[in-house]
Amino acid sequence: MKINRRDFNYSLALTLGSLQFSHLAFHEQQQTLRVNGDRITQHIRGLAEFGKNPQGGVSRVAYSDADKQGREYVIGLMKDARLEVTIDAAGNLIGRRAGSVPALPPLLIGSHIDTVPEGGNYDGVVGSMGAIEVAQTLAEKNVTLRHPFEVVIFQNEEGGLIGSRAMNGELTEKELDLVSRSGKTIREGIKFIGGDPTKLSTAKRKQIGAYIELHIEQGNTLDTEKIKIGVVEGIVGINWWDVTIEGFANHAGTTAMNNRQDALLAAARFIQAVNRIVTSVPGRQVGTVGRINALPGAPNVIPGKVVLSLELRDLDAAKIKMLYDKIYAEAQQIANDSRTKFDFKEINVNTPAPTSQFIRSYITESARKLGLSTKLMPSGAGHDAQDMARLGPVGMIFVPSVGGISHSPREFSHPQDIANGANVLLHSVLEFDRDQVA
Amino acid sequence: MKINRRDFNYSLALTLGSLQFSHLAFHEQQQTLRVNGDRITQHIRGLAEFGKNPQGGVSRVAYSDADKQGREYVIGLMKDARLEVTIDAAGNLIGRRAGSVPALPPLLIGSHIDTVPEGGNYDGVVGSMGAIEVAQTLAEKNVTLRHPFEVVIFQNEEGGLIGSRAMNGELTEKELDLVSRSGKTIREGIKFIGGDPTKLSTAKRKQIGAYIELHIEQGNTLDTEKIKIGVVEGIVGINWWDVTIEGFANHAGTTAMNNRQDALLAAARFIQAVNRIVTSVPGRQVGTVGRINALPGAPNVIPGKVVLSLELRDLDAAKIKMLYDKIYAEAQQIANDSRTKFDFKEINVNTPAPTSQFIRSYITESARKLGLSTKLMPSGAGHDAQDMARLGPVGMIFVPSVGGISHSPREFSHPQDIANGANVLLHSVLEFDRDQVA
Repeated sequence: MKINRRDFNYSLALTLGSLQFSHLAFHEQQQTLRVNGDRITQHIRGLAEFGKNPQGGVSRVAYSDADKQGREYVIGLMKDARLEVTIDAAGNLIGRRAGSVPALPPLLIGSHIDTVPEGGNYDGVVGSMGAIEVAQTLAEKNVTLRHPFEVVIFQNEEGGLIGSRAMNGELTEKELDLVSRSGKTIREGIKFIGGDPTKLSTAKRKQIGAYIELHIEQGNTLDTEKIKIGVVEGIVGINWWDVTIEGFANHAGTTAMNNRQDALLAAARFIQAVNRIVTSVPGRQVGTVGRINALPGAPNVIPGKVVLSLELRDLDAAKIKMLYDKIYAEAQQIANDSRTKFDFKEINVNTPAPTSQFIRSYITESARKLGLSTKLMPSGAGHDAQDMARLGPVGMIFVPSVGGISHSPREFSHPQDIANGANVLLHSVLEFDRDQVA
Repeated sequence: MKINRRDFNYSLALTLGSLQFSHLAFHEQQQTLRVNGDRITQHIRGLAEFGKNPQGGVSRVAYSDADKQGREYVIGLMKDARLEVTIDAAGNLIGRRAGSVPALPPLLIGSHIDTVPEGGNYDGVVGSMGAIEVAQTLAEKNVTLRHPFEVVIFQNEEGGLIGSRAMNGELTEKELDLVSRSGKTIREGIKFIGGDPTKLSTAKRKQIGAYIELHIEQGNTLDTEKIKIGVVEGIVGINWWDVTIEGFANHAGTTAMNNRQDALLAAARFIQAVNRIVTSVPGRQVGTVGRINALPGAPNVIPGKVVLSLELRDLDAAKIKMLYDKIYAEAQQIANDSRTKFDFKEINVNTPAPTSQFIRSYITESARKLGLSTKLMPSGAGHDAQDMARLGPVGMIFVPSVGGISHSPREFSHPQDIANGANVLLHSVLEFDRDQVA
């Protein structure tokens, strides 16, 4: 049968009109959708059994037995949520549901369930259990999205965003031989959790529709300001240098004060300078000296050498550069004054990853409709979302961390705040799916 | 035969007159006595073979094979100097020669031949070879002292003045079980070098006439000021505290600058305060932070805890107390400002050991007669002399250390300076023996 253009146009108009009507009715129905907060709490508690420790926290480092068992538990939850579960070659856990428009790029939500040693039960877990809950809510209400839909539990987030970096193609063959906190190499770890490191390239993704991640804030801004939802404007860039200060080691008893080349005294002035320079300009940039090693390290010897870490974070790479330049210049001044030598070695650079404006608007609008206060804020911590930003638009939803405590057994978020976050995730997903017509 | 008082007095006057005459003649002859500088150099080179390392220095830690072999070499030198050699129960090497007035308390000179790991060939060695050379010079010139005379090579000076502390009775039974740098316990070490730890108390001495030690300065005062002989006014007191600073460890990315309780930032201010306070008053006191440990010690975590060492040294215990009080007060201020907590734990206290005024005058006078410039100065380093000060009057003679470098293969003193020091030691011994009539 031959269809002429007019017939086709008419037929298309009828079809679109009908879709438009049903879509509007459906949209109204969707507004009342809510996740089951109690079920999220129950799942968080269930997962907390794997790697739990006497301090009330959890040590579920990637590729450990606890990690593997936790993943088995998560696979069960995904199946309950009627997701089709696979493990990609990189070891990421993926729960899929087909979209009504299969040609659309996939919409991904998720987080991670691995923890730091002696970590807590919320970092990564809230976003993981929240994403599965969104899938289960959609399934129970028989909501089929237009976009292919995936819940992703990225492997080994805490050990260097390994799973998400495999997905965006950044993970190198060489890195696979690094030893992870579990004692296994990453290569061995991937095999251990059911991936296939020989086929790593198959885990690499093309264009995605979006990636939206729910996460605890890990800072205390929301908790202090009593705001319910953080709308993440971007994930900060992180620059890390090792700074070596060379003085001259000498006898602490026989070397007069004015004859010393004390590398630790120079380091002390430097540490204070970093703090002063970073706080000298407005904004939410941070600067930290977290590691220091003074040699030879005896009470009766003047330190001849100090190696310390300098870490600067901000949403704006130019601001990091400006702060570094000031710190570097002041280090030269300290070196001159103290007869020491400063050497800066760049160890790692993560460029800032801004979130997408339109996804931020879905998150903000969803929160508004749910009656939840919001604040636009940076993520000071790194997240898998920064890697997914290489593949398409990303967004992040923060919920309050009590006291801003994270990477600690004392990490805690209130169940209601978690449910709020999951509801914002649910409605952001629906907004995206409704608004983003390909 | 009965002797009446008049006869006796007459006889005594005759005898004293004769003594007086011979003594004056003898004294004049003694003024021309000189050590053999080349022989000292040769002996220093000979000893340097035991434990020598590729860096040009020596690792002859106490109780090592090198230490034992070095001691055998020294026993040979002592015998050549016509000393009667014994090893006391503590393992100290002692070379004795009888005095013409056996009832007088003994006059001791000496030092040590053990070194720090990767040490040099002058610390301890100069005083040891210098003392043996003094004995040999006296023997060759047939000079018999009135006082019983001993050259002492103290064992394990570098590991905590073990030999001299056995001699003054301070060494405890418990300390014998501590593991020394050789890997042996001190008890095993004493046995290894020919002592008998079960009879330790027999090494304890009573009153001595004097102890005089020649040593390299280990600082750069003499070298810088081009002075030949340091007359040590005392060995400084050393107070060592461990200072614990408690802050709160938190995420370096998510914790705003004004929300931090950064223990390392507080430590940095403290380290600068120590330097400022110690240099704020005149004098030769020193203050050092030589060891620092920041926890957890990761570039991306704000340090929650810092432990550092604080060491203060001065000849005056009251001055150390005054400086400590100021430092402690400022620490409380830093704690308040930074929301951290400072805790000071006293680890070790060595009280200052002043040298004896009259022995300083023998040293100064001997140097003057030899045409050598002198400077009164503290010893910033600990020495066996501080322990001998518990048993009687002590004195110390310093010779220049090139560049003030010590405990290093780069340690060096010029042969002429060493010979000068040994000549001052020789004449100080003669002055003492002549002047100190019991």
